[in-house]
Amino acid sequence: MRGIEGEQVLLRIVLSESRTRDGQPLFRRVLELLRAEGLAGATVLKGIAGLGQRGDIHTVDIEVISQDLPIAIEAVDRPERIAGVLPKLGLLVSDGSVTLERARVIRYADAPRPRPSSNGR
Amino acid sequence: MRGIEGEQVLLRIVLSESRTRDGQPLFRRVLELLRAEGLAGATVLKGIAGLGQRGDIHTVDIEVISQDLPIAIEAVDRPERIAGVLPKLGLLVSDGSVTLERARVIRYADAPRPRPSSNGR
Amino acid sequence: MRGIEGEQVLLRIVLSESRTRDGQPLFRRVLELLRAEGLAGATVLKGIAGLGQRGDIHTVDIEVISQDLPIAIEAVDRPERIAGVLPKLGLLVSDGSVTLERARVIRYADAPRPRPSSNGR
Repeated sequence: MRGIEGEQVLLRIVLSESRTRDGQPLFRRVLELLRAEGLAGATVLKGIAGLGQRGDIHTVDIEVISQDLPIAIEAVDRPERIAGVLPKLGLLVSDGSVTLERARVIRYADAPRPRPSSNGR
Repeated sequence: MRGIEGEQVLLRIVLSESRTRDGQPLFRRVLELLRAEGLAGATVLKGIAGLGQRGDIHTVDIEVISQDLPIAIEAVDRPERIAGVLPKLGLLVSDGSVTLERARVIRYADAPRPRPSSNGR
Repeated sequence: MRGIEGEQVLLRIVLSESRTRDGQPLFRRVLELLRAEGLAGATVLKGIAGLGQRGDIHTVDIEVISQDLPIAIEAVDRPERIAGVLPKLGLLVSDGSVTLERARVIRYADAPRPRPSSNGR
């Protein structure tokens, strides 16, 4: 989405990969919510290890695929749009963290999307 | 950890995956330190490429698993708790970067942990 | 790079993995630019899913390796150095987001680089 240059807000959600809602991974439900609310874009990163509330350390070990690794979802948008998504997000993410940071957007054009590159490929 | 809503601090540590301390990967030692210091949670992300101090570019290439990719560790907690962990962290992370950012915590409940989901799974 | 402790800027670039420039992945071109401009270091993270401008959700699914996942590139450096790299970066990243955040650097020494660890390994 173009036109969000300036002082905006970085929304960051961290939740467990193992969380589900209605049979779907929770992070996908969050992504769908962000899309439904019209956010400009979002990036989902998967951790290789995490430290949970109870002090447990979870890691990817050889031949052991942990189902409880952290997932971080980041999105930058206008303050009012981020604020607008928080109530629904709070209902969805009962387990996890939701944080806001200030971010100055220099350029925001055409976030990742499924079309072939036209630059020399 | 519940109850850290409000203006807090995001601690971010970037170090090399290849770093070890006492025979353990350094990032695990850092995670153990954060746990020992009672931090609410932490997320460990592994990069696919990095640019080091000497201007070297390190990447994951086909059939070459680099041992020197960057690892980013992120944790959000109260300013005083983050400040309290910095001296020990500085001793551990002689090689790498440690940065702080302001972050407003909207929700912090039950970071990733190893128990089955109760939401429709 | 040593000596950038203090109030600095975190530069974050998000672009699509599928973008190329002159036959190279765009994120590598960005990394090369950051190196050429003398930035202290950079970390490249690859997302497992993303939400694009048009509201498409892209994910890694079983046996389907998407070529359009988001790539996040993060670098911390002095404000003037980050500002200096923005014009060239803007030419390179016509598609994607470029954001700046304030970050306080506590320690910055020897970012990831290719030499064996001397700590008990």
